[in-house]
Amino acid sequence: MADFTPIGIAHSPFRKAGAPPFQSLFSQAEGRIEIFPEYQEGLMSIDGFSHLIILSHFNRAERQALMEKPLSDGETPHGIFSTRHFNRPNPIGISYVALNSIDKGVLHVTGLDLLEGTPVLDVKPYIPAFDSIPHAITGWVTDRHIENIRKTSIRAQQEIIKNQKSQ
Amino acid sequence: MADFTPIGIAHSPFRKAGAPPFQSLFSQAEGRIEIFPEYQEGLMSIDGFSHLIILSHFNRAERQALMEKPLSDGETPHGIFSTRHFNRPNPIGISYVALNSIDKGVLHVTGLDLLEGTPVLDVKPYIPAFDSIPHAITGWVTDRHIENIRKTSIRAQQEIIKNQKSQ
Repeated sequence: MADFTPIGIAHSPFRKAGAPPFQSLFSQAEGRIEIFPEYQEGLMSIDGFSHLIILSHFNRAERQALMEKPLSDGETPHGIFSTRHFNRPNPIGISYVALNSIDKGVLHVTGLDLLEGTPVLDVKPYIPAFDSIPHAITGWVTDRHIENIRKTSIRAQQEIIKNQKSQ
Repeated sequence: MADFTPIGIAHSPFRKAGAPPFQSLFSQAEGRIEIFPEYQEGLMSIDGFSHLIILSHFNRAERQALMEKPLSDGETPHGIFSTRHFNRPNPIGISYVALNSIDKGVLHVTGLDLLEGTPVLDVKPYIPAFDSIPHAITGWVTDRHIENIRKTSIRAQQEIIKNQKSQ
């Protein structure tokens, strides 16, 4: 067993399950990562990084599925470890956000793909030499699939903006 | 609280704390990710991906530190969330490995930076459109720092190969 205690919480415009964009790099949503007071010392010298990796706990996910249909594009189920679906045995999400500013333990970011209130487990600096593999080959995930996810993510954001304006 | 149950275990040539390369992209170490039988169905259609993301539990890490000196290069401590040090409040590691082959629930991989026996929490496919940010800016982490980590990682592997030959 591995027991983790959240270090913070995500604040996002996405409030309904299924509403967030499917991938953070396709999201222009602004939001906040609030780091709890007892962990804020750990943010020292984070301000120089343009992008951060946020590990989060998809605490509303189902954890039983070993096969899932992709969130966008496709009727064919795939093994859960060959998809990025949030319903997975250990529902830990990886988001990449652009860091805009920091204000007393609150990271103001662009690129959220998390629901409001999602527990944050870790923050790491994104370092291209460690994290970027531009040439990786993507198996069953085709350019068309990626384009569908991009479009669905953009629609998800437009929906939010429309709702915010009508309130 | 977030409770996770390992889905597998890493088998690696690195057996002593401090021995593994510091970043998986600088590692040429071959090893195995053994997925436990009850989760093996989740590997379906993973064979087409060249690189996988492995989330692991650094179960030998200290979890108290909020400030750490970088593993290589430097006397100046930084906030833990602006480093990739394994001693962090929730010691979840991100490794990127190249998938060589699969044999009944065992992933044969290149690029391990994990100790033998490290619990594996999740496997995700690496998808450049989702995960690669080549232009990210790296704050206090300079090219010299990255070069030192690369050199230290190569030395760590040579040490292992030397030890294996002398056995």
